[in-house]
Amino acid sequence: MKIAVDAMGGDHAPQVIVQAVEQAVQQYPNLTFVLFGDPVQIKSYQTHDSAQLEIVPTTEVIENEDEPVKAIRSKKDSSLVRAAQAVKKGEADALFSLGSTGALLAASIFIIGRIKGIDRPALMPTMPAVSATGLVNVLDVGANAESKPAYLEQWALLGTIYAQTIRKLSHPKIALLNNGTEFDKGDRLHQEVYQRLSHNTFINFIGNVESNHLLDSDADVIVTDGFTGNAALKAVEGMAKLLLHQIKEALLNNGTRVKVGALLAKPAFATLKSKFDPSLNGGAVLLGVKAPVIKAHGAADVASICSTIEQIDIMLTTKMIDQVVLALQHHVDEGED
Amino acid sequence: MKIAVDAMGGDHAPQVIVQAVEQAVQQYPNLTFVLFGDPVQIKSYQTHDSAQLEIVPTTEVIENEDEPVKAIRSKKDSSLVRAAQAVKKGEADALFSLGSTGALLAASIFIIGRIKGIDRPALMPTMPAVSATGLVNVLDVGANAESKPAYLEQWALLGTIYAQTIRKLSHPKIALLNNGTEFDKGDRLHQEVYQRLSHNTFINFIGNVESNHLLDSDADVIVTDGFTGNAALKAVEGMAKLLLHQIKEALLNNGTRVKVGALLAKPAFATLKSKFDPSLNGGAVLLGVKAPVIKAHGAADVASICSTIEQIDIMLTTKMIDQVVLALQHHVDEGED
Repeated sequence: MKIAVDAMGGDHAPQVIVQAVEQAVQQYPNLTFVLFGDPVQIKSYQTHDSAQLEIVPTTEVIENEDEPVKAIRSKKDSSLVRAAQAVKKGEADALFSLGSTGALLAASIFIIGRIKGIDRPALMPTMPAVSATGLVNVLDVGANAESKPAYLEQWALLGTIYAQTIRKLSHPKIALLNNGTEFDKGDRLHQEVYQRLSHNTFINFIGNVESNHLLDSDADVIVTDGFTGNAALKAVEGMAKLLLHQIKEALLNNGTRVKVGALLAKPAFATLKSKFDPSLNGGAVLLGVKAPVIKAHGAADVASICSTIEQIDIMLTTKMIDQVVLALQHHVDEGED
Repeated sequence: MKIAVDAMGGDHAPQVIVQAVEQAVQQYPNLTFVLFGDPVQIKSYQTHDSAQLEIVPTTEVIENEDEPVKAIRSKKDSSLVRAAQAVKKGEADALFSLGSTGALLAASIFIIGRIKGIDRPALMPTMPAVSATGLVNVLDVGANAESKPAYLEQWALLGTIYAQTIRKLSHPKIALLNNGTEFDKGDRLHQEVYQRLSHNTFINFIGNVESNHLLDSDADVIVTDGFTGNAALKAVEGMAKLLLHQIKEALLNNGTRVKVGALLAKPAFATLKSKFDPSLNGGAVLLGVKAPVIKAHGAADVASICSTIEQIDIMLTTKMIDQVVLALQHHVDEGED
């Protein structure tokens, strides 16, 4: 099994990527990595040669500032476009990038292509949660600004299969992010999605969840339109960051006694960090395209990239995409377009 | 100036309401309070008679579980409906409740009525923020599940006037909650709202803000559709609650050394609490109806209710509603319905 890696995407590319891939090569003898990027830079970080690590030289890089669709059309020799083309041609089985989410989305849709029955792919992170499994998947968190009822039903199915195959949950509980818990809550879109999910026998639908319980509900997977999902996820991330920063400031600026206390209490914050570190849970998956496509955070470190590679390995060995294709033939209606 | 008070709404009604009103009577000799509710219960908490405090007996109470529109139609002798009717008839100048938000919204629209030029009223809390003024207003946070471009433009105007009159900001900065900062971000709704806000000369529009910066942007007022605003606000509140609970747990369950540290560091958390306590900033205002309508949290304490009464006092003394009516004659187009 071969993973096409966009070696030039992300804040510390290609260094952290080369380091993580060299670790993964030891750990996963069944995996081969094709690194697309500047060979001089890539080789400068390589510590040894390996038959599991190939380099394909590319000359261009897509930046976060580039307009995604334009970039994948004009930067034909970029590390991302070349990596996506390798997957399209069957030369690689999965696509992995730390670069621009928009460009990865565009490359996945326009080069690799959607699975039949999926109108729009969805972006899905695995979040740390206060729940039985300690995790929750949320989709779509921003691949789509406009959503239709059929899309959300398809995403519920994609989320179900992901939770079954990757998280090994036999009956993953699916909830709908809405503005209230009652069945008739929400705008027309969410009211219709509620009805569709209730009637889809493939989906173990447990009802609505509000965003104040995004990380502490009974749901294993939360389905949301891409605009609201993006807002809820960013609000959660932003608030966590803001609050932890404010706590740090308060601990440093309330006298020596407080400072000593903070020093003594430090292990508690380490426990907390290990519990809520999203980088331990792999990358965000772009579900609905014809191959596993995974986006790791631009600032991801070696450990975080390794956990993402593990996630890709599981997606490949379980043949998750095949299971999606199979389920789609039976359990969802296609959307209007 | 007379405030109609739904004395039966909220978790600790009418006790905390009577206590807060008795305090306010001392502080605001210009205000009179009409308490609608069970006279026996209200009187049992009264410590003394005051010419500024009237009681109007009512026999029914609208509960959080009641369907809002149905409730205001069927419970004609409820404390909320009677209080709203007093405002409608001009017997009182403002409406204040700690009860069901949905019922207050329904009573405000169907009994008090919308201001001409406002298609849909919006719910707007004042949130603690890491900004120059330490505050941010966000609207709509859930009065409307469906939103149209014209609504958001009207809310931007309402937010501007509120920030000018109540927060005394001469040129309040208005931002649009969106899924990216660039001008062309968002779905069709948000793209059109961006254009409208850019061209409205009354509004000091500073562009898009993402929800990870809801509480630490340059904006004084953030405009959002009611569905997304509801999700973002609840996500922020839920994450703060979850994180603080997790920190507390971690401080208690990591041994004696950490516990001692937590004890020493306690003043830091008190500082933090006073900085981010939303109850210090008054209640959520329902903007766009013909009188000041304010909703305090159901669990609000006496101090929090007093800060809400101060807010109502300022809204009345500055004649904010008149200023809204005036501005609407000049600066917004009406929506399609």
